[in-house]
Amino acid sequence: MRHWSMSMSQSLKRDELDEILSVAEAAAEAAGRVTLPYFRAGVEIRDKSGAGQDFDPVTAADVAAEEAIRKVIEAARPEDAIVGEEFPEKAGESGLTWVLDPIDGTRAFMMGLPLWGTLIALSDATGPIVGIIDQPYLRERFVGSPLGAWQGKTPLRARACADLSEARLSTTGISWFSEAEQEAFRAVEAKAQLTRFGYDCYAYALVAHGFIDLVIEAGMQPYDVHALVPVVQAAGGVITDWRGGPAHASSQIIAAGDKRLHAQALELIAPFAN
Amino acid sequence: MRHWSMSMSQSLKRDELDEILSVAEAAAEAAGRVTLPYFRAGVEIRDKSGAGQDFDPVTAADVAAEEAIRKVIEAARPEDAIVGEEFPEKAGESGLTWVLDPIDGTRAFMMGLPLWGTLIALSDATGPIVGIIDQPYLRERFVGSPLGAWQGKTPLRARACADLSEARLSTTGISWFSEAEQEAFRAVEAKAQLTRFGYDCYAYALVAHGFIDLVIEAGMQPYDVHALVPVVQAAGGVITDWRGGPAHASSQIIAAGDKRLHAQALELIAPFAN
Repeated sequence: MRHWSMSMSQSLKRDELDEILSVAEAAAEAAGRVTLPYFRAGVEIRDKSGAGQDFDPVTAADVAAEEAIRKVIEAARPEDAIVGEEFPEKAGESGLTWVLDPIDGTRAFMMGLPLWGTLIALSDATGPIVGIIDQPYLRERFVGSPLGAWQGKTPLRARACADLSEARLSTTGISWFSEAEQEAFRAVEAKAQLTRFGYDCYAYALVAHGFIDLVIEAGMQPYDVHALVPVVQAAGGVITDWRGGPAHASSQIIAAGDKRLHAQALELIAPFAN
Repeated sequence: MRHWSMSMSQSLKRDELDEILSVAEAAAEAAGRVTLPYFRAGVEIRDKSGAGQDFDPVTAADVAAEEAIRKVIEAARPEDAIVGEEFPEKAGESGLTWVLDPIDGTRAFMMGLPLWGTLIALSDATGPIVGIIDQPYLRERFVGSPLGAWQGKTPLRARACADLSEARLSTTGISWFSEAEQEAFRAVEAKAQLTRFGYDCYAYALVAHGFIDLVIEAGMQPYDVHALVPVVQAAGGVITDWRGGPAHASSQIIAAGDKRLHAQALELIAPFAN
């Protein structure tokens, strides 16, 4: 059923890509087995950034899930490098790097909201090749690769939206944006049809699924971004930094289901790019 | 197993309360059968308020679900009045009124987010007695009544949170708040541990569940509010207007899991009450 929907500059052979996809899915399974018992249970929180406005909770679930993911990857593909949020980088020799965020949306997790996700990407020097956004409580797994984008057996297809005035815009929150970044966001918000806050990686999954048209964020880390790229792109969407360059190298991200919408919004935010 | 956890000023006998609860649950079931096939399908949207900032979408699902709910209620309890978002008020003779919002969170529904809810309340002249917040995609139903609060077989118990500095605050959005209401919200936000936007009725369910500590909203309609009251109260929480009066009579709502937190936040927002 699956076919080559994108050119593979990445020089991965089909066999190896299939193997990578099955390792990535096994790692997501393993993470879900670890995270779910913690979700809506008494979760032990420690604050890695000190108190106050920079409150950045990390849960025991976060650490345990990254351990579980690394174990699956290291057993199957010991030659690959691994970069994750919770542990030091593991060097590799294959030229391929796994980029992990075991729980993207720790605040949502803490608040009992089933919109956090486990992010698993495989990237080479040019950028992400395979990405998974996994939400185990909803039993929803969004997978993107050069073979296409799927949620379970449903192919993902971003929605056409030619104009910002018809766009559903989302962002997780803007309180951590710089003044300039907030100004950029508000310029787009003022022209969008409606705006909703608070969905972390799940917003990108819904861009791929054709329900959200536009996501604009700042303050992102590489492990927040890599997995999103193949999911959005393979569903026909566009995801870049605020200048139109590669998303995975930036903290400022814009994702759109329609390239016309991406171009419109980019024009408004590019003046505020880093 | 169930016991009387609150005094019943409402003069309803236990038998009648049990019957009302089973009618309310049957109505929620009927609504879920109608709404789910529309969720994440091609949904026909019409805009009842005209274009622009007041964009207020109503879906075909909203209308069909209210029809389904009314049918169940009218068959079982023809003497009760019914007030809903989508149809004219039905008069009654029992002194009891059903208050309905078939899809609270139509924007979330449109955007594919499983955080909208079907709200069903039964109220008398003094206020809401029974409330249901139903999320059929998640198969989660939060029920509150003088018998207590449950989600399935799990009793709901709000979380202790003595101080605003430890509080998880939420609101659906503040763009439709008045200037004064935004100022009130920001005064609380500045002291809260963390703030998240965008969860409609589901935020109140999570107050009852012990994961969110505080919700502050404005611009609410009676059909948005009635069902929330018994769920929050029977879980041990407090829900009032911004002066500390009955929530169901106001558009400005504050709900807290802990009465100490409620008192602290009320002090900050009361000066901005209508």
